[in-house]
Amino acid sequence: MYKGIEASRGIGIGSICLITDYDLSFEAKHIEDTEAEKNRLRAAVEVLKVKTSAMADNIRKTIGAKEAEIMEGHIAMIADPAMSGEMNKMIDAGQCAEAAVTAVCDMFIGMFSKMEDDMMRQRASDISDVKTGLLKELLGIEDVDISKVPQGTVLVAHDLTPSMTSQIVKENVVGIITEVGGKTSHSAILARALEIPAVLSVPGITEKVKDKDTAVVDGTEGVVYINPDGEIVSKYVIKREEFIRAQAELESFRGEETLTADGMKVELFCNIGTPKDAKKAIECDGEGIGLFRSEFLFMDKSHLPSEDEQFEAYKEAIEIMNGKTVIIRTLDIGGDKEIPYLGLEKEDNPFLGYRAVRYCLANPEIYKTQLRGILRASAFGKAKIMVPLVTCVDEIRAVKALVEECKKELSSENIGFDEKIEVGCMVETAAASLIADMLAKEADFFSIGTNDLTQYTMSVDRGNAKVAYLYSAFQPAVLRSIKNIIEAGKAVGIPVGMCGEAAADPLMIPLLISFGLDEYSVNSVLVLTARSIISKWSKADADALAEQVLALSTEAEVVAALKAAAR
Amino acid sequence: MYKGIEASRGIGIGSICLITDYDLSFEAKHIEDTEAEKNRLRAAVEVLKVKTSAMADNIRKTIGAKEAEIMEGHIAMIADPAMSGEMNKMIDAGQCAEAAVTAVCDMFIGMFSKMEDDMMRQRASDISDVKTGLLKELLGIEDVDISKVPQGTVLVAHDLTPSMTSQIVKENVVGIITEVGGKTSHSAILARALEIPAVLSVPGITEKVKDKDTAVVDGTEGVVYINPDGEIVSKYVIKREEFIRAQAELESFRGEETLTADGMKVELFCNIGTPKDAKKAIECDGEGIGLFRSEFLFMDKSHLPSEDEQFEAYKEAIEIMNGKTVIIRTLDIGGDKEIPYLGLEKEDNPFLGYRAVRYCLANPEIYKTQLRGILRASAFGKAKIMVPLVTCVDEIRAVKALVEECKKELSSENIGFDEKIEVGCMVETAAASLIADMLAKEADFFSIGTNDLTQYTMSVDRGNAKVAYLYSAFQPAVLRSIKNIIEAGKAVGIPVGMCGEAAADPLMIPLLISFGLDEYSVNSVLVLTARSIISKWSKADADALAEQVLALSTEAEVVAALKAAAR
Repeated sequence: MYKGIEASRGIGIGSICLITDYDLSFEAKHIEDTEAEKNRLRAAVEVLKVKTSAMADNIRKTIGAKEAEIMEGHIAMIADPAMSGEMNKMIDAGQCAEAAVTAVCDMFIGMFSKMEDDMMRQRASDISDVKTGLLKELLGIEDVDISKVPQGTVLVAHDLTPSMTSQIVKENVVGIITEVGGKTSHSAILARALEIPAVLSVPGITEKVKDKDTAVVDGTEGVVYINPDGEIVSKYVIKREEFIRAQAELESFRGEETLTADGMKVELFCNIGTPKDAKKAIECDGEGIGLFRSEFLFMDKSHLPSEDEQFEAYKEAIEIMNGKTVIIRTLDIGGDKEIPYLGLEKEDNPFLGYRAVRYCLANPEIYKTQLRGILRASAFGKAKIMVPLVTCVDEIRAVKALVEECKKELSSENIGFDEKIEVGCMVETAAASLIADMLAKEADFFSIGTNDLTQYTMSVDRGNAKVAYLYSAFQPAVLRSIKNIIEAGKAVGIPVGMCGEAAADPLMIPLLISFGLDEYSVNSVLVLTARSIISKWSKADADALAEQVLALSTEAEVVAALKAAAR
Repeated sequence: MYKGIEASRGIGIGSICLITDYDLSFEAKHIEDTEAEKNRLRAAVEVLKVKTSAMADNIRKTIGAKEAEIMEGHIAMIADPAMSGEMNKMIDAGQCAEAAVTAVCDMFIGMFSKMEDDMMRQRASDISDVKTGLLKELLGIEDVDISKVPQGTVLVAHDLTPSMTSQIVKENVVGIITEVGGKTSHSAILARALEIPAVLSVPGITEKVKDKDTAVVDGTEGVVYINPDGEIVSKYVIKREEFIRAQAELESFRGEETLTADGMKVELFCNIGTPKDAKKAIECDGEGIGLFRSEFLFMDKSHLPSEDEQFEAYKEAIEIMNGKTVIIRTLDIGGDKEIPYLGLEKEDNPFLGYRAVRYCLANPEIYKTQLRGILRASAFGKAKIMVPLVTCVDEIRAVKALVEECKKELSSENIGFDEKIEVGCMVETAAASLIADMLAKEADFFSIGTNDLTQYTMSVDRGNAKVAYLYSAFQPAVLRSIKNIIEAGKAVGIPVGMCGEAAADPLMIPLLISFGLDEYSVNSVLVLTARSIISKWSKADADALAEQVLALSTEAEVVAALKAAAR
């Protein structure tokens, strides 16, 4: 048995196909005919571009547009004149094409991999893929044709490059095991999109297996068995059937309303990060967007997005949702989300600093650009504005005043917008929770952000491993805060949603039903799961459980009681 | 009119004595007779040591033991063989004594002034004083004899060194103005101790005045007038009389109980940082110690303090308080308080990190050493244990279990302690406020730390200037939290104190009376002021004001209402 990272849920049992690494070594030699060598490189670039485009098309059709973006990024990189220019210069100096590719790519990889930003580091891994691709073309190495593996194959590799995953035939591959990669790596994303069980980061696994070994891949628990005995195989055959049955059961909730066991309707929305994610939300049967993070427009850029750029992005999501609600959270930068070109100072405690609505109100021109973009997009469907990190009534009033200003401007410019657009308040600080009744009089809706609410209530940085034991939405203090917020919203009749991770937690859902939450906003892939769990609880049962749990004074007791009652 | 930093309250009107800087320049020359030069340095060191000791004695008698410590620190530095050894080495190499003093002192100043720790940086300024003293001895420069200035003098200087301030005759100096220094500089501390109005950090003031100019020093507002017209002088004469009358009125509260206008008794305690501060608390008529910060034992050291060291320090404070309550807060490191030798990792958000009780419970051996020290000291008076940064019931239970363990150990070792020592809970996080009723069942008392409570409730780093506008205990959310905590404590009959700055705030006091606070712990110098303000409010009046204020939804409205009602 080997432990790894559970990257894609489900159980796979099959026969191993071991993908060994290519030998990309080459002998560096001095080039006389540099023009011929540059042509050789140009040809390799062209071939790789065509192959990558084909892979991108394939992924777009079989997996999805978002996943195909990775390959499109590669194409852009391959075609980048800066990169090929550098390579040609080296060839002019007498280096061979392989050496030029290696040197230039390694330089960029070194540069990007040192950057703090995750997205920049991801670039390093993309360039590494491009480098491999170019060397393979130059050295005439053929890809292992993964598309030809037989039914029931478990792929084992050091890493799966996007070019490999693009060839996977979903029906034939029952499991994936790799030596590197985490839950957010390309391999993990693609494995989940293809619904193939995957366990990543199993150290040295390629040394421990050979072709045709039997493998059990438990992508739910992150466990792998190689050549297990019959007892284990039969146990996992049963587990696999249970998993498939549970998945099929979930499918029965597709297209249905979200109802509690006693028929009370609630809304089940999705959290998204880009307009394209809205498609996924629709595919996953989401009933709206409860949290559209707008930071994607500001990050991975060198300048502020224009009003038009923002308008187009919001409009795209709103149109995809086709009349369903889209709640757009206004710029939530600062904290752990840095935007280099804004030139914000490094703070001692960024989570307690100049971020989100604080930054926006201090920079009304930047904020108004966003608000105008949202307002204009609101003419194309049902949009709402949601303000993050509110701690006092003044802030929500100031935002509403800016919205009114923008409306007046747009009216005088004869630009359309939704006159009745709602402005809501993220309730994610201790202060907002304490004055939820006051905020409820100012806001059109509430949305509880449990991740920050837990962090601020418990005074625990959610990224700090040393105090992670305190970071739990099941802490009695956090549960009370959630209850207070929902009750304060209901007292004045505004809807209350939740867009933190807790909204999809099977243990939390009965409590939220009892407290009276109106809208659950979850990761798209969890829509059916959440709908299924909500359907299992009546208000009366949920109330009884909530009463029992709220009388408990420790998180451990709370979790134990909820687990005992879980459905 | 010039603006500066208000460093010591009150109004001074008088005639300027301008203290110009000494000319400490010298001509560096090559020394042949190095033994004679070393003797010259040794003599200067001896004379300075004697003079500094005399100054320390003088300060101890006229101002206080704590203030004298600064000079004692200087003596230790002057006598430090490492420093004089280095200087002698330079003289052996042919340098003159003045050059040797300058080079060696500058080296240490450079070293210490770069350190992050405030106390280490303070060292740099101490060494600078020693350097000046030695050069003055070597160059034969006589001190301006401040002790000889006539009655009604306003001292103006670039900076006041401790050696200057030690000569001040309180009866003759009516005001102090300097170009550098802040509220916590030596000059400020000594000015306050001598009750001389002082305005510091007035840029370029020594260039703008001459001897015998008339000066008005408003140490309350931080304003200075040089040669003002008659109107201003007469206005400030009246202000001065009002200030003196108010001070005299305060004196009438000395030795009295702390009573509301309708005769309800509350306790008025002091916040202290070292055992010696307890003397000041007694001098200022404090009725106990509501917060004894224990960090002084851990900071400015290279190793953990032993149980005995801790025991002696706690015992000293407890004996000074002579039967009055001493509430010792257990180690509250982390956040902004670093202790280098503990080797704690730098955190992204230290205020939301591994600090205070979190650190202590993860390091039970370090914590038990402190708890044993406190327990042993509790045999000598009335001590209580106070636990900082509690966020859940588990933490206070775990501390109580450790206290019981220590009690058992001490009993088996036949060492005395107070069997009934109380263990209380700082309520300074949003979580603790939300579950105050649960914590009240576990803790023997509560103490509200308003500084952290405000910071965590508002999600605002109290050191971050960019979001300082949100940091206010008068935010509706914070006021509600304070009310909830006090009511939760009272509901189960445990006493509730407050040891944050708000406890001495004239605007906050009526609200605290209304909420029912039992114990106010303030800076020693504010004891009489707080007692006076408490005496002005009856419960009924305070309740009426609180009811009005709690209905307001913004901090600005709250402050305006409290100011309008202030007594």
